[in-house]
Amino acid sequence: MRLRNKPWAKEKISAYPQYVVPNPEQYKGKWHELFGNHHPIHIEIGTGKGQFITGMAKENPEINYIGIELYESVIVSALDKLIENDLPNLRLLNVNAKDLASFFENGEVERIYLNFSDPWPKKRHEKRRLTHHSFLELYEQILISEGEIHFKTDNQGLFEYSLMSFSQYGLLLTYVSLDLHHSDFSGNMMTEYEEKFAAKGNRIYRCEVKYRAK
Amino acid sequence: MRLRNKPWAKEKISAYPQYVVPNPEQYKGKWHELFGNHHPIHIEIGTGKGQFITGMAKENPEINYIGIELYESVIVSALDKLIENDLPNLRLLNVNAKDLASFFENGEVERIYLNFSDPWPKKRHEKRRLTHHSFLELYEQILISEGEIHFKTDNQGLFEYSLMSFSQYGLLLTYVSLDLHHSDFSGNMMTEYEEKFAAKGNRIYRCEVKYRAK
Repeated sequence: MRLRNKPWAKEKISAYPQYVVPNPEQYKGKWHELFGNHHPIHIEIGTGKGQFITGMAKENPEINYIGIELYESVIVSALDKLIENDLPNLRLLNVNAKDLASFFENGEVERIYLNFSDPWPKKRHEKRRLTHHSFLELYEQILISEGEIHFKTDNQGLFEYSLMSFSQYGLLLTYVSLDLHHSDFSGNMMTEYEEKFAAKGNRIYRCEVKYRAK
Repeated sequence: MRLRNKPWAKEKISAYPQYVVPNPEQYKGKWHELFGNHHPIHIEIGTGKGQFITGMAKENPEINYIGIELYESVIVSALDKLIENDLPNLRLLNVNAKDLASFFENGEVERIYLNFSDPWPKKRHEKRRLTHHSFLELYEQILISEGEIHFKTDNQGLFEYSLMSFSQYGLLLTYVSLDLHHSDFSGNMMTEYEEKFAAKGNRIYRCEVKYRAK
């Protein structure tokens, strides 16, 4: 995603602590208190402009969603969607995914969404890919037993890499589509990027994997 | 593959026992005696007209190849290629893959090739797919520890199914290409079917999986 410099973004984010949670470390192990219920928690890593996560939160009021996005200039667009639609089951975090374990207790999260993650195609950047072994380890820590990752991308190389990385980690592949938009998968929630890309007629790859029982 | 009725096929096959091994049960555990060396044995299940396996046998004299094909009307074309090119490291079997364990001893085979296997798209025919759990069990029996399956197909549904079946069986995915002919994979040996299909510009899917250590 191209990043535009938005010097006002930081200030706007601070103005809405009810949507973009400041100091999320304080909720580690206590997210259910913040949401005021014990619904399952699903997180999206790399929420971008927020169309996916706000759409999911609207459709599934019985799930609590947390959207994680590093870039201030991008997360402000997700924030705008939250300002328009006050969704009690959605919060945003303006943090780095590397620090997930600082924000979530072991087994606090039920599902992780990775949508159109940066492919980092160069071999020397492999460790930055969100499906690298080190991230799979981190996710396992915060996920429940048999927790899930739902992953979609238009990037063939990243999808191939991820299938191998999942397999090598011992994750169970429970769903795969090599052409999501021409499959019988129903209820796909599109991201902004996905809409643009699919309009060109290109393929979207999608899979679901599950961790082994803890 | 469309099958043409060739009433003379059976007779022709019987006329070349040096190429299409009659009563292969007698070589169970003794294929190295037949080949006269201890080179690794690679088998192809569904050899069809034989372009892949004869090409591989020519290129790799240090590997012994066995091509397995159920249909007489098809295997005769593979036989023709063997008659033209006497290859000491290649034999054909006109048998059903279901009976593999009658022809090979535990751990006698190092690698299995599955090329453009019948997709059997109907759910009620799932058990006939050569990547079904029951076949993966059969292959494990005749393969060495950490033996491999190399699989390619143009059928998206079969490839998706197979990736899940491999994962559920606990196989390790060591290579995957979602567009083989536009990848950097070198040394691809094409089948007759693959040549025709690729000429239309369509995708070929390919993967390699490895069994866990016995």
